[in-house]
Amino acid sequence: MSTLPSDAPLPTPQRVLSGMRPTGALHLGHYHGALKNWVHLQNEHDCFFFVADWHALTTQTQRPEPGVLEQRVYDMVVDWLAAGIDPERTTLFIQSRIAEHAELFTLLAMSTPSSWLERMPSYKEAVADNRELATYGFLGYPLLQAADILLYKASGVPVGEDQAPHVEVTREVARRFNHLHSPAAPILAEPVAMLTDTSRVAGLDGRKMSKSYGNTIAMRDRPEVVDEKIRTMPTDAQRVRRGDPGEPSRCPVWAFHELYSDNETRDWAAAGCRSAAIGCLDCKQPLIKAIQAQQQPWRERAEELLADPKRVHWIVEVGTERARAVARKTLREVRHALGLSY
Amino acid sequence: MSTLPSDAPLPTPQRVLSGMRPTGALHLGHYHGALKNWVHLQNEHDCFFFVADWHALTTQTQRPEPGVLEQRVYDMVVDWLAAGIDPERTTLFIQSRIAEHAELFTLLAMSTPSSWLERMPSYKEAVADNRELATYGFLGYPLLQAADILLYKASGVPVGEDQAPHVEVTREVARRFNHLHSPAAPILAEPVAMLTDTSRVAGLDGRKMSKSYGNTIAMRDRPEVVDEKIRTMPTDAQRVRRGDPGEPSRCPVWAFHELYSDNETRDWAAAGCRSAAIGCLDCKQPLIKAIQAQQQPWRERAEELLADPKRVHWIVEVGTERARAVARKTLREVRHALGLSY
Repeated sequence: MSTLPSDAPLPTPQRVLSGMRPTGALHLGHYHGALKNWVHLQNEHDCFFFVADWHALTTQTQRPEPGVLEQRVYDMVVDWLAAGIDPERTTLFIQSRIAEHAELFTLLAMSTPSSWLERMPSYKEAVADNRELATYGFLGYPLLQAADILLYKASGVPVGEDQAPHVEVTREVARRFNHLHSPAAPILAEPVAMLTDTSRVAGLDGRKMSKSYGNTIAMRDRPEVVDEKIRTMPTDAQRVRRGDPGEPSRCPVWAFHELYSDNETRDWAAAGCRSAAIGCLDCKQPLIKAIQAQQQPWRERAEELLADPKRVHWIVEVGTERARAVARKTLREVRHALGLSY
Repeated sequence: MSTLPSDAPLPTPQRVLSGMRPTGALHLGHYHGALKNWVHLQNEHDCFFFVADWHALTTQTQRPEPGVLEQRVYDMVVDWLAAGIDPERTTLFIQSRIAEHAELFTLLAMSTPSSWLERMPSYKEAVADNRELATYGFLGYPLLQAADILLYKASGVPVGEDQAPHVEVTREVARRFNHLHSPAAPILAEPVAMLTDTSRVAGLDGRKMSKSYGNTIAMRDRPEVVDEKIRTMPTDAQRVRRGDPGEPSRCPVWAFHELYSDNETRDWAAAGCRSAAIGCLDCKQPLIKAIQAQQQPWRERAEELLADPKRVHWIVEVGTERARAVARKTLREVRHALGLSY
């Protein structure tokens, strides 16, 4: 999915920041919805990508089993690297390891009207659905995001349209802080939203690909698993027998052709389906091949990483140190502006 | 002012925690309202006293001049030490120097319903008076206080009755965190409120002693300044001439007799006033002496401290390191309970 033009075009290279909640091993929905864009961004920008493990706590009302979160972080970072995120060029780090995120969050809280947070659509909708989410932390979720972004003086933040109001509030938070505490020389940079097309990636059953629906293909699923999953996925329900003509727009498989097939293959599949010239298994074959081909380098890189268990930890360690140095510098400026220089 | 019995008596020695906003040089109102109690508490408990400089930001809507806050912190700590706070027995530190306060605040936010904070009388009243205070940070003020307390696993918190709801919410925050994240072995200790009689100390004009009223006697006012301030303070307005009888209950000077005079002196003053046997300057003489006598050791200790400017910084440095070690230990346990052990 491409990066759509934002309100202000971003000259390169710029500091770009984005985070992902630690969901464990990623699936193709994560790849197409965000990670592919990250891999692309690192070629042009100074990227900071982080594991948003504190954010995961804002909506987690149950205690995870010991070790589960840690494993999820590890598996996700492996997938980032497998997809081609290059830790030499890009700074990978873990939010909870840098206390400065919490400190900036706390300091920005002092000049941020609660009303800015209460009016966020993401908050209002989620709380209307589930009263247990009405915590102080969840209300402050966009402000913690603002701290994440402002701490690194990021110029650009790749987000889907639903998160664009959070970048807008980040700009307001920065503007107000600068206005109150450092009017002559602004300290916090106002980031622009790099709007990313995050239209849903369909899962095996046609609904949005999501772990909770059990309809995913993991980035590192083995070839035989992909083969099995695609072969058994449902097709146009009105095409009961091999000889019945089908309609691609009714078929969950078609969404995969739109992601993975070239025009020629798509034309072949659509025509073959509508005329019953090909069967559903025929139609699925090029998809199985395309997905397996895409996954092969991912699996190879992941195997290399997993062969040396300390390596991923080391990459995260180095990235976290690099991020911390930037965070500390910003916070020194913020503390100074607030008079907290004792 | 004495420490009144709280709902649960506190066996000694226990960890006791209290903070003060950095207001600069303290006056007699601060001394009698809080500091005297601190000096007393350190004889029986393991006390942690801190400069609440982040809290000062929650209600500060204007940027202080550079260096002002730093000077206020310094002057206040000098007064703590002058009053007899012993840095060998007691841990003195600065809130903003220990990022763990912000980190615990952020983590506790995730399990704290906003409604607990919205219903705090202190918040509702202040915001009704001044809409500018309706910030996310001011709403979270009792939660930041809870983090201050829970970070050190304090058993007791000396507070005036107006702050008792904050200790109650701290108990609820701890209980909920333990229940959700560490039910088998509670991590956070529920503190008790050590209710302190903070009935107002009257200033030179009979109103509450407060810098904003210009009616204070500073702890380190020179003897001649105290002499001048007391001699010129207003007395019973109905006692116009020396020969008119007066009434102590109408006279601002009487509040000082209640704080500083023994029964004999008080009887002498009351009788002399009502019979016009003594004049107002006569009545004030024993007070001038008593206040100057109380201040003398404070001034001596302060002079000693100020003779070596690095000494106060060093005391704060050592205390902050000591506090940080405790804070880190608690936070390791909290992070572990949340699964944030990567």
